[in-house]
Amino acid sequence: MTDIDLLITNGIVLTMDPDHRIIDNGAVTVMGDTITAVAPVARMGHPPAREVIDAAGGIIMPGLINAHTHAAMTLFRGLADDLPLMTWLNEHIFPAEACLDSDRVYAGSLLGCAEMILSGTTCFCDMYLFEDSVARAASAAGMRAVVGEVLYDFPSPNYGPMEKGLDYTRRLIANWHGDPLITIAVEPHSPYLCAPELLVRAADIAGENGVPLVVHLSETSNEVDTIRQRYGVTPVAHLANLGVLAPNLLACHCVVLDESDMSLLAEHDVKVAHNPESNMKLASGIAPIPQLIDRGVCVGLGTDGCSSNNNLDLFAEMDTAAKLHKARSLDPTVMDAETVLGMATIDGARALGLDRQIGSIAVGKKADLIVIDTRKPHLTPMYHPVSHMVYAARGADVSATVVGGRVLMKDRRLLHLDLEKILTDARQIAEEIRKSSS
Amino acid sequence: MTDIDLLITNGIVLTMDPDHRIIDNGAVTVMGDTITAVAPVARMGHPPAREVIDAAGGIIMPGLINAHTHAAMTLFRGLADDLPLMTWLNEHIFPAEACLDSDRVYAGSLLGCAEMILSGTTCFCDMYLFEDSVARAASAAGMRAVVGEVLYDFPSPNYGPMEKGLDYTRRLIANWHGDPLITIAVEPHSPYLCAPELLVRAADIAGENGVPLVVHLSETSNEVDTIRQRYGVTPVAHLANLGVLAPNLLACHCVVLDESDMSLLAEHDVKVAHNPESNMKLASGIAPIPQLIDRGVCVGLGTDGCSSNNNLDLFAEMDTAAKLHKARSLDPTVMDAETVLGMATIDGARALGLDRQIGSIAVGKKADLIVIDTRKPHLTPMYHPVSHMVYAARGADVSATVVGGRVLMKDRRLLHLDLEKILTDARQIAEEIRKSSS
Repeated sequence: MTDIDLLITNGIVLTMDPDHRIIDNGAVTVMGDTITAVAPVARMGHPPAREVIDAAGGIIMPGLINAHTHAAMTLFRGLADDLPLMTWLNEHIFPAEACLDSDRVYAGSLLGCAEMILSGTTCFCDMYLFEDSVARAASAAGMRAVVGEVLYDFPSPNYGPMEKGLDYTRRLIANWHGDPLITIAVEPHSPYLCAPELLVRAADIAGENGVPLVVHLSETSNEVDTIRQRYGVTPVAHLANLGVLAPNLLACHCVVLDESDMSLLAEHDVKVAHNPESNMKLASGIAPIPQLIDRGVCVGLGTDGCSSNNNLDLFAEMDTAAKLHKARSLDPTVMDAETVLGMATIDGARALGLDRQIGSIAVGKKADLIVIDTRKPHLTPMYHPVSHMVYAARGADVSATVVGGRVLMKDRRLLHLDLEKILTDARQIAEEIRKSSS
Repeated sequence: MTDIDLLITNGIVLTMDPDHRIIDNGAVTVMGDTITAVAPVARMGHPPAREVIDAAGGIIMPGLINAHTHAAMTLFRGLADDLPLMTWLNEHIFPAEACLDSDRVYAGSLLGCAEMILSGTTCFCDMYLFEDSVARAASAAGMRAVVGEVLYDFPSPNYGPMEKGLDYTRRLIANWHGDPLITIAVEPHSPYLCAPELLVRAADIAGENGVPLVVHLSETSNEVDTIRQRYGVTPVAHLANLGVLAPNLLACHCVVLDESDMSLLAEHDVKVAHNPESNMKLASGIAPIPQLIDRGVCVGLGTDGCSSNNNLDLFAEMDTAAKLHKARSLDPTVMDAETVLGMATIDGARALGLDRQIGSIAVGKKADLIVIDTRKPHLTPMYHPVSHMVYAARGADVSATVVGGRVLMKDRRLLHLDLEKILTDARQIAEEIRKSSS
């Protein structure tokens, strides 16, 4: 009898451990949901295992972590592009969101999970309406997720008045407590849609329960102007004044920051989710990520929702992140491939408070792993595997996706999801959205 | 007996014709190398054909046109990244290029062709050393190409002294005259590597032979400073003074332009190749493409070489082009999906002087066509097909590639190339490059 449930072998292992160790021809063993060994094949040999994945000379690496998304917005993919922000929001996205309910959010989230699994993402952090549906979809798909119901001052189509949103969040925390894959977060939308009291109460609930607090922060200059008018300070300073800046805070976007904002984020060990493609598409600007990293801020990488991207492919997002800041700074050495791959793996894990569980390949960590097939023209030749993962590979190059030791995708086939039904359901909902919004 | 050689049916046809006509459920017929009909399936029915491609509800569109590349640089993919420009060039790229010969350029170009065919590119414009090898590789791969030997003041590893470069170019023009797929261009590298006499002579040869003139122009601020020091004017003004600006000139990059440069390019109907990802990765900056388009300049889209990108995927390049200028201008309406898809098809054709032959789907044009499989999570749902092609699709979504009526790829399989041999050859050359440059 073997005690190895899964052996992934014959690949270049990018561990993303503190030494960024790369094993040229390596293997990883898994027992249950946990990594039990990482070693060169020459040392490990070919131990018997219940299931074997042959990486065929490709890459074995930690699953990618999407630090900010709204998974169910897959339903609005390409619904409206190239529009002024307020036209896009008021005439397209808000009317489409008015069509949503718990079932549709479940269907849209499942579509998002299918896309993420197929493109090598094993964990995502989500903010949206009807988040219990998102948690159920992630759970059904076998994905790891940090999810939280969006909270704001006005009534929600899900829970009604704000007070009930806090109750809903508390119930989510209680109901999903101890789940092996799902972590609940407290997620007030932003300083411009949440009064100070809501922000403070949300932070208190997160603190009491030891869970992440997630907020959109300083996404646009318009937001900064609004908060300055209301409170006389920048959004970051406003949160500092409220006592909300803390190591468990994940601040999404952080595009428009001044020097003092960056210092505050660093001082309080706030985590940042960088969403370069969404910030570009919505013309929000370019976040000062190299400066944040220089100050020691932990930055994860996100895609944001599919209505402002329009996909959930973190490989493409890595490529954009690596290149965008070079063009802005006119310095080709900023945001090197190693740094960017870290953002999409171990730093993303740290941003979500999950770095003891995931984000690198190490004995004792959860087996969230992906394999990349490099036997393709666009990945040949290969001088440096990390360069390839950032600058040349795409989601479609992922040949296997494993979460918590369970193989979710192999040879581009989803093993536990009914893809045809997911696509059909999504098309039908889109047809209804199209009718109701036209 | 049927007179239809190829029928592509059951797809949304993006014609990219002057009306940007989209046929919801359409079909295209081909006889020999030429499109003979484009119509709704309801009207065309299912005529008998020697070969049928079922688009399965996906997209049928013109093949993409890569307006600027150095195909053989696939051999240096990921060899060196994230370095200062001069370190990258002098310590990595130039030493690697010193290892090249005619056979290696052939092998590298064939690798590039394989990658391009698999990602939906049907035509490319190339500048490099040993261009007869590039022409032979494109021809062997069945791709359409505009190729020209790079010319500069100093001796070339291919032809030796500059004078012989002009002879080599004349021979290329003579040898490939009348070829159905290959067009020869005259390609002086740039105003900073070519003396005025060379630029003028190159332009004369292009003019006499009615072929394109291709040059790198205003790629970096360093180039602009150099030309200003030497000649007292900008690179664009320098070419204007030499009488080289003309409708057959394809100027690659055009990143650093002033108002007067843009007016000169527009006045002389110069064509521009925009390479956003390369310009980002090398930290050259962001070309003022929306301003050029506003002035009526025809702009095609290119990937540049694989050492500064690091792939040849024009779908990814479209996505970047559409988003980058929004982030720069803080205006989400610039570079809409329609404009960007035009750059990669009909405007690219115009930039290469080939718009009477290719770039749109119309009766009488060459059958350079691709099919995109949209039955995937990341392309579901679909509200607007053009949006999907720019913002969500990737090269790996192309399910068929046809050039001049010949099916080069179907169901992700290359039909006329020995992929295993191409990959093996490239890996072996890379091993030798690695040894000689370390």
